[in-house]
Amino acid sequence: MVAPAMTRDRRSTPALWRCLLLAALAASAPVHAASLRDDVRAWRIAHEPALVRELADLVALPNLASDATSIRRNAQALVAMLERRGVRAEVLENGPWPPAVFGELKTPGARRTIVFYAHYDGQPVNPAEWATPPWEPTLRVREGGAWRTVPLPAAGARLDPEARLFGRSSSDDKAPIVAMLAALDALRAAKRKPAVNLKFFFEGEEEAGSTHLRELLLAHRARLDADAWLFCDGPVHAGGQPQLVFGVRGVMGLELTAFGPARAVHSGHYGNWVPNPALLLARTIATLRDEQGRILIEGFYDDVSPPTAAEQAAAAALPRVDDRLRAELWLGATEGDGASPAERVLLPALNLRGLESGAVGDQAANAIPTLARASIDFRLVPRQTPERIRERVEAHLVKQGWFVTADSVTQAMRLAHPRVLRAQWEGGYRAYRVGLDAPVSRALRATLDELLDAPVLLVPTLGGSQPLATIADVLGAPLVTVPIVNHDNSQHAKDENLRVQNLWDGIEIYASIMARLAAHWPR
Amino acid sequence: MVAPAMTRDRRSTPALWRCLLLAALAASAPVHAASLRDDVRAWRIAHEPALVRELADLVALPNLASDATSIRRNAQALVAMLERRGVRAEVLENGPWPPAVFGELKTPGARRTIVFYAHYDGQPVNPAEWATPPWEPTLRVREGGAWRTVPLPAAGARLDPEARLFGRSSSDDKAPIVAMLAALDALRAAKRKPAVNLKFFFEGEEEAGSTHLRELLLAHRARLDADAWLFCDGPVHAGGQPQLVFGVRGVMGLELTAFGPARAVHSGHYGNWVPNPALLLARTIATLRDEQGRILIEGFYDDVSPPTAAEQAAAAALPRVDDRLRAELWLGATEGDGASPAERVLLPALNLRGLESGAVGDQAANAIPTLARASIDFRLVPRQTPERIRERVEAHLVKQGWFVTADSVTQAMRLAHPRVLRAQWEGGYRAYRVGLDAPVSRALRATLDELLDAPVLLVPTLGGSQPLATIADVLGAPLVTVPIVNHDNSQHAKDENLRVQNLWDGIEIYASIMARLAAHWPR
Repeated sequence: MVAPAMTRDRRSTPALWRCLLLAALAASAPVHAASLRDDVRAWRIAHEPALVRELADLVALPNLASDATSIRRNAQALVAMLERRGVRAEVLENGPWPPAVFGELKTPGARRTIVFYAHYDGQPVNPAEWATPPWEPTLRVREGGAWRTVPLPAAGARLDPEARLFGRSSSDDKAPIVAMLAALDALRAAKRKPAVNLKFFFEGEEEAGSTHLRELLLAHRARLDADAWLFCDGPVHAGGQPQLVFGVRGVMGLELTAFGPARAVHSGHYGNWVPNPALLLARTIATLRDEQGRILIEGFYDDVSPPTAAEQAAAAALPRVDDRLRAELWLGATEGDGASPAERVLLPALNLRGLESGAVGDQAANAIPTLARASIDFRLVPRQTPERIRERVEAHLVKQGWFVTADSVTQAMRLAHPRVLRAQWEGGYRAYRVGLDAPVSRALRATLDELLDAPVLLVPTLGGSQPLATIADVLGAPLVTVPIVNHDNSQHAKDENLRVQNLWDGIEIYASIMARLAAHWPR
Repeated sequence: MVAPAMTRDRRSTPALWRCLLLAALAASAPVHAASLRDDVRAWRIAHEPALVRELADLVALPNLASDATSIRRNAQALVAMLERRGVRAEVLENGPWPPAVFGELKTPGARRTIVFYAHYDGQPVNPAEWATPPWEPTLRVREGGAWRTVPLPAAGARLDPEARLFGRSSSDDKAPIVAMLAALDALRAAKRKPAVNLKFFFEGEEEAGSTHLRELLLAHRARLDADAWLFCDGPVHAGGQPQLVFGVRGVMGLELTAFGPARAVHSGHYGNWVPNPALLLARTIATLRDEQGRILIEGFYDDVSPPTAAEQAAAAALPRVDDRLRAELWLGATEGDGASPAERVLLPALNLRGLESGAVGDQAANAIPTLARASIDFRLVPRQTPERIRERVEAHLVKQGWFVTADSVTQAMRLAHPRVLRAQWEGGYRAYRVGLDAPVSRALRATLDELLDAPVLLVPTLGGSQPLATIADVLGAPLVTVPIVNHDNSQHAKDENLRVQNLWDGIEIYASIMARLAAHWPR
């Protein structure tokens, strides 16, 4: 009764009348939200094995962005999953690079359009490290401190909410896809409609740096038009509570290769005369960053935009889980003089993700290695750009005495320079933040507050990275991240897993946004 | 005629008469040496394919000291090879550790006993790096800048002296074994006898640090008694000339493991808060050594015995091959302000033989790794002991903020200390040097000078390590190294190889010592 009046002719409605309408909406909100949540929950309880089965089937598809055949298999599976829900879906091709999957479900009369974003590619794996193969999903329950594999229960049965589904991308980032599609199913079963036009955009190259996302967005700008993008990626708070995240750090990767002798030589006969590339590279790494995380590269902080007072306050107000995390990760110390992770990620970071040279342990030979490699990822904050970081890092490397090149390193180059370093950059992207009080931020906060019946946690920025700045640049829409997966999901590492209860919570969160966001964000 | 008079009753010979005898010996020496060399060479020319075949058969036996079954197969093959020459041979057991092979051939009337030492175990391999599998020896010739595999020629044919036999231990250290046994064959064919009692001692654990050699020597002290040990290991001069080596550096290995979070965590969410073990380990490595090779560990040089003037002069007098080596190894610079390798190895050294943490390149994941490992080898000079090095290195590591332990690292340990480092030492041993003017040194110099018809090169110390100090300690005999293999044999690395001409030269060198050393070292 009320809503039709609103949508019929917004501009002719007198201001007072609109205020009354909004007040009525707000007053009825908790009732609506609770009944909606109950409906979604009841539906989920009746369908638990099928939901985990759908996720397991998706996780069973290998999904490295570099593996074109597998990536395409994922894209086709996603199109089929969308179409099963009556969502018009298609693969958005992007030349030789991983395609995206696009879906659209219009709601008659809706005045807002929301894009649900997720990515379907996953981080590289070292299968030898995994307890079970990364793309053979298994359900496990914790028993006496160890994980025990259990079969999926039969249809209609319930699952242990603390059970976990293990497999690459179970959490990062396939669970959110299953949660949003299940939310559609649950709404339909409850004979409720989304209150917004829905679009779905599933990226296939996120873990490879979203290098070709811009072209894809530019090519499909019109159909991707929306009032806001919801980023369904990353974990909930380490304490387990849902949260809204208003930004992400930017990221860029750097592969360094230091060159030693053309062939490995005996460390006895030539040690002290032939320079050792691993020692030289270690010395350079030591100049990049101090032990508290402060980056020592000249000018690195020049472009850093400091967090606002509201952002600092929100980060400081988050529940402290430091002690639990320290115990869980067996940490005798943390960086940053006692600051919390939420506060620390307001700053840029440098991580050494890999070192490789010669061999260690039983394989170690008394030789001077020919190469030494280091792999680094940088996390950026607003105003820093990959271009400037690259300039500053390379200037620093040159100052350490290296001849720095991105090209193949030739014999002539190695003879001409005392030290040769190949620096290969991975496509990175900038950080993104939206204000905690922007209209979309306020609407999402209100939607989640009413679902949870408590103020949702507000995270000014996630420590991780998603290509939000690229999307904001090309499409102009604001973006907020709505994560659902467990924080201890072993994302980007071996034995990635999803806690089942997080999938259940995610379905309720996404269903609420689909059904209730418009009520808090009238047009 | 002369020698029997000498050996019959040395003590009763009047001094003048002895002088005349020695003068006669010396005058006839060049003639003896030339005719001996011609005989050995003619025999070798008639037997080239069989000689390389015998080496290839030996190289075909995998020979890691850690592989008990294979090591035993090598020992048995060596016993058979010795027995084929009429040498009384046996395996000297050493509990669960690799056995040695001992052989003895007495020469009636000889007054000197010489032990020929070699080792039959080899360095670890990474077969993926090798052009052909390490224990499938292949003969190759250089053609247009590339190596082409060729079959062994039929009996009686000649080999290209620049051909090389590829395979693990072809040079280090199986070729010397074949050379010394071939020397016996050649002497016998020429109806010449060794002029010394010969003993052979082939070690099976040298590349694993000779950790249990001392027990073996102690158990067999009586039968290993000799006037001198000849160490048949290591390469000839980089310029290709034969050389005598009067010492070796000591060696010890150290495996360092730095501990990070209990599981790899996302570098975005936890970067700047969870300490990165690879970054911390790199910072510590940077404190160990400067860019010119000077070790920065406090007190490291306290026990260093400086080289004598004679040693410095001999090192400086060696032919300079620096420019050739730099070109061959594609080096734009060397350590040590222009000093030669021979001068540099008079000092101790620290080599970083391996680094490992997380992953690099395509396998790199944006995660903080759980572990970082570094593998180091130290080269020691006279008066330094493994015990003191260990003390000083560990004190240095503690000063860098680490809790250092050799034990398994527990959760409790990691929670109790900001930084935990496991330091595992490999059994090392001390350096050894014998004076350039010691009696055995003079005798060997004279023997080689007459064979070469020129002064043999004198190397005060080899850069590499052999357990000479252990042998000198237990047995009290002086030791000199008589290397024969090519310097560019890729020892301790992939594609190890032996240049065929070096095997030919080695046979002549060892035959000369067997037949002529006693003439220059009367008793």
